[in-house]
Amino acid sequence: MLTSLLNIELPLLQAPMAGVQGSALTVAVSNAGGLGALPCAMLDPDTMRRELTAIRAQTGRPFNVNFFCHATPVFDAVRDARWRQSLAPYYAELGLDAGSVPAGPGRATFNAGMVDVLREFEPPVVSFHFGLPSEELLAPLRAWGAKILATATTVAEARWLEAHGADAIIAQGLEAGGHRGMFLSDDLAMQTGLFALLPQVVDAVRVPVIAAGGIADVRGVRAARLLGAAGVQVGTAYLLCPEAATSPLHRAALQDPMRRDTVLTNVFTGRPARGLINRFIAECGPISALAPAFPLATAAVSPLRAKAERLGRDDFSPLWSGQNPAGCRVVAAAELTRELGGA
Amino acid sequence: MLTSLLNIELPLLQAPMAGVQGSALTVAVSNAGGLGALPCAMLDPDTMRRELTAIRAQTGRPFNVNFFCHATPVFDAVRDARWRQSLAPYYAELGLDAGSVPAGPGRATFNAGMVDVLREFEPPVVSFHFGLPSEELLAPLRAWGAKILATATTVAEARWLEAHGADAIIAQGLEAGGHRGMFLSDDLAMQTGLFALLPQVVDAVRVPVIAAGGIADVRGVRAARLLGAAGVQVGTAYLLCPEAATSPLHRAALQDPMRRDTVLTNVFTGRPARGLINRFIAECGPISALAPAFPLATAAVSPLRAKAERLGRDDFSPLWSGQNPAGCRVVAAAELTRELGGA
Repeated sequence: MLTSLLNIELPLLQAPMAGVQGSALTVAVSNAGGLGALPCAMLDPDTMRRELTAIRAQTGRPFNVNFFCHATPVFDAVRDARWRQSLAPYYAELGLDAGSVPAGPGRATFNAGMVDVLREFEPPVVSFHFGLPSEELLAPLRAWGAKILATATTVAEARWLEAHGADAIIAQGLEAGGHRGMFLSDDLAMQTGLFALLPQVVDAVRVPVIAAGGIADVRGVRAARLLGAAGVQVGTAYLLCPEAATSPLHRAALQDPMRRDTVLTNVFTGRPARGLINRFIAECGPISALAPAFPLATAAVSPLRAKAERLGRDDFSPLWSGQNPAGCRVVAAAELTRELGGA
Repeated sequence: MLTSLLNIELPLLQAPMAGVQGSALTVAVSNAGGLGALPCAMLDPDTMRRELTAIRAQTGRPFNVNFFCHATPVFDAVRDARWRQSLAPYYAELGLDAGSVPAGPGRATFNAGMVDVLREFEPPVVSFHFGLPSEELLAPLRAWGAKILATATTVAEARWLEAHGADAIIAQGLEAGGHRGMFLSDDLAMQTGLFALLPQVVDAVRVPVIAAGGIADVRGVRAARLLGAAGVQVGTAYLLCPEAATSPLHRAALQDPMRRDTVLTNVFTGRPARGLINRFIAECGPISALAPAFPLATAAVSPLRAKAERLGRDDFSPLWSGQNPAGCRVVAAAELTRELGGA
C-alpha cells in the first residue's frame, strides 16, 4: 500500500515544480492528506533550510523533498558563446548588454551539502529526477528512514530504479509537464504515453507505481488506478492554486483557451521539458542543437526572461504545463487534494 | 450510445490495419459482437470487391470499411531520385537493380471509383484516416445510411470532424501503432498522449468518442471508459491472432521481449507511423527529410523489403505496433473481442 509506505491519508502526490512553488503549496497539500513536495533543485542551502523550517512549523504530516541528480556538465566555452551569439538579436531587442550576462549553472545536482541540510530535518520522503544519486548519498537518507522515490519514463528505467533501491516509482507519461525524468536514454522518439507506459511498468516491477502525466481531474485519477497505479502524482492542476508561486503571466497563459498546445523543449535549460508554446520556443525550438548541456542553457536566457517579464511579456518565460492544461482551475490546494485524492 | 449508433453488441472496434489483415479478421471480430474492420487503402477495386463479398457471405453483423483520404501528392522526380539514391547502398547489398524499381503510389486516396464498389455492398460503417473526403464523396455513403467515423489526434481535429459531420470520433493517442491520423497539423511535437487527449476531446465534442492508442488489455479498456470513451479501438493486440495476416517476421518481432521499443517513422511511406524499430528505421530514420511525400516513399522501399523478407530478415519491413506490444497474445480474434469488449 502506497499510503502506508508513505504514511499518508490519500494516494495523491503533488508534483514538485521547481520555480513555481515553495513551501506554501507543500504544506497545504500535506495538511489536506496528500503528499506535498518541496522542489529543491533551484534552492541554495539557506533557502532550503528556511523552506524546510517553514514546513516543519506548519505541518506534522509527511512531505517530499525533491532533487535533480543529473551529471554536472563540463562548461564548454565555445558552445556557450555560440548559444549566446544565437540570442544576440534578443539581447539587442530588449536593450541588454550581452557581455554582462553571467554564466551559471541554474540548477544544482544532489550533493553532500544538500544531505547535510536534510539531516537537520530528516524529511520522511526524498524523490529524485534523472535517475538516482550514488549509494553514498542515499545511505544517510535511508539511515533516518526516508523513503526514496524516483521517476521512470520507460520500462527499462523502472527496472533500473527498482534494482537500485527505489521504494516506489513514478511512471512519467509523455503527457507530463516540466522536465522529462529520462536518464537511461536521451531519445525523445521512444518516450511513451501514460496509457502504454503505466501497465507495462506495473507489470515489470514489484514496488508501488505512481502514475504521472496528464492527470488533471477525478476521471484521470480513477483511470490511472484502474491501469494499476498505487497512486497518482499531479502537477499542472495545482498551478492556479493560490498557494502556488506561479507568476501572473504563467497563470494567464494557462487560462488562455487559445494556448492549449504544449511541446517538449530544451531551450530553457538544455534538457527536454514540456511547456506551453511561446515566442522563444517558436523561434528557437522546440529542440535546439545550440542549447548547451543541462542546466547550462539557463544562464543566457535568464536576463531575457527577467526583462521581458518586466515588460509584461512571457516571450522568454518557461510556461511549464502538461498536455492537459484545460484541467487547471483556480481552487485551494487543500480542496483539489481532497477531490483528486478521494477519487 | 455507441453500440446503438453502430448497431453492435460490444463497444469494441478492431482497428483497420492495412497490409496485415483482410476480411478474415473483420468477420471474426464482427461475428463475436465487436466491429470488425476492412482496411481498403492498399486494395485495388477487384480485391476490395472480393473481400467485401467474403464479409457479406460470412457475417450478417455490421462491419467497418476504412480508407485514407490524404491529398494525392504531385510526383516530384528530383525528390524521388534523391530518395532512391540514398537507398542505393541497400539495393547494391541486396543485389537489386535500382533502375528497374518502378514508381507507384502504394496507397490510394478515397475516390469515386471506391464509392462505386461500396455502393454494391452498402457497408454500414465507413471510417477515414487523415481527415474526411469531400461532401460529394460522403453524400452517397450517407444516402444508404452508413455511419461515418474519423480519426482525431488533437482537440482541434476532433472539433473539425464534428463540424464536418462525423458520427463518432476516434481519439488516437500518441501511443497508437500505424499511421498517425493527423491532418490539420503535421507537427509531431504537438501530438498528445491518450491520457491527456481523451478527456479533452470528450469535453470538446457532442458525438461519441472512441479511444485508441496503447489499449491492449481489460485494464486499458476500463480506464478509457472511465476517461469518457464511449468505446475503444484496438489494433496491435489483434496482430498475433491467427485470423490476422501478420507476416511470420512481424509476429516474431512482436513476441521478442528485446524489441519492445517503437518510434514514429516516415521512412516506409512518407508519413509518420508507429512501428517496432528495425534496421531501416535505425539507419535512415526515424524521421527522414529525404522521404518523398506520402505515399510516394513506399515504391522505392518495396523491393528492398521483398528481397530481405525472402532472406528471412525484417530489415526493411514496417513492423507496425503501438507502444504496448507487451499486450500481444496468440489468441483467437473472437476470444480477444469478447474479453476486451466485455470489460
